[in-house]
Amino acid sequence: MTSPHLILGAFLLATSLARGGTDSTVQEPPLRVVRLAELQIDPSRLTEYKAALREEIEWSIRLEPGVLSLYAVSVKSDPSQIRLFEMYTDTAAYEAHLQTPHFKKYRTGTQGMVKSLVLVETDPIVLGAKAK
Amino acid sequence: MTSPHLILGAFLLATSLARGGTDSTVQEPPLRVVRLAELQIDPSRLTEYKAALREEIEWSIRLEPGVLSLYAVSVKSDPSQIRLFEMYTDTAAYEAHLQTPHFKKYRTGTQGMVKSLVLVETDPIVLGAKAK
Repeated sequence: MTSPHLILGAFLLATSLARGGTDSTVQEPPLRVVRLAELQIDPSRLTEYKAALREEIEWSIRLEPGVLSLYAVSVKSDPSQIRLFEMYTDTAAYEAHLQTPHFKKYRTGTQGMVKSLVLVETDPIVLGAKAK
Repeated sequence: MTSPHLILGAFLLATSLARGGTDSTVQEPPLRVVRLAELQIDPSRLTEYKAALREEIEWSIRLEPGVLSLYAVSVKSDPSQIRLFEMYTDTAAYEAHLQTPHFKKYRTGTQGMVKSLVLVETDPIVLGAKAK
């Protein structure tokens, strides 16, 4: 905890922005695969769902080189609404992710907890993050 | 570009997950401030809006230590729908961001381009990303 800075982006097609006192990168197109998901979870199973999601994310980050980030948040005004922000190196990495045992376990295991699921495909505009 | 890995998280209260061949971090609570924004842009001004947004993000990442990431994507099925994923070190960093000249310039400059804006406050569940 010596630095307040988020170290990002060796994988990025980085634009070095060294001016201004903070090293950083802002990714320019061509860009990564970014997908969003909006889930409504059965409130009575929310704790259980979050545990399964956490496990799935930990394994994905640990085992899959093509999974760059999986961010999961709940909506403050309704914590049973979950939003996911997913970043993959490319389409092949996303498709490979769907075939992994940990993803399949998550999908099967949480089926009864998910009341609705909206998947949103996106085109990145700019993916800005702190770099060392 | 020697590594496919996303370097993340010195700032994180990191759980080191060194098993499995990939160094990585998965952030556990207490967590950063994560905010989502959903914007509908006037399609006739989309190019202009994206340029202003890109500039705002570049300055924020460059100048503000408390701005960890600002990810902007458009929805594939309707590119005039923009989604933002914003991560700050804490509430003070978010509030400071709103007072910066580059944010104020963006907000004023794009007012006529934004047809609707929904801001979503969230509680992070798990923020998983590749680390070196």
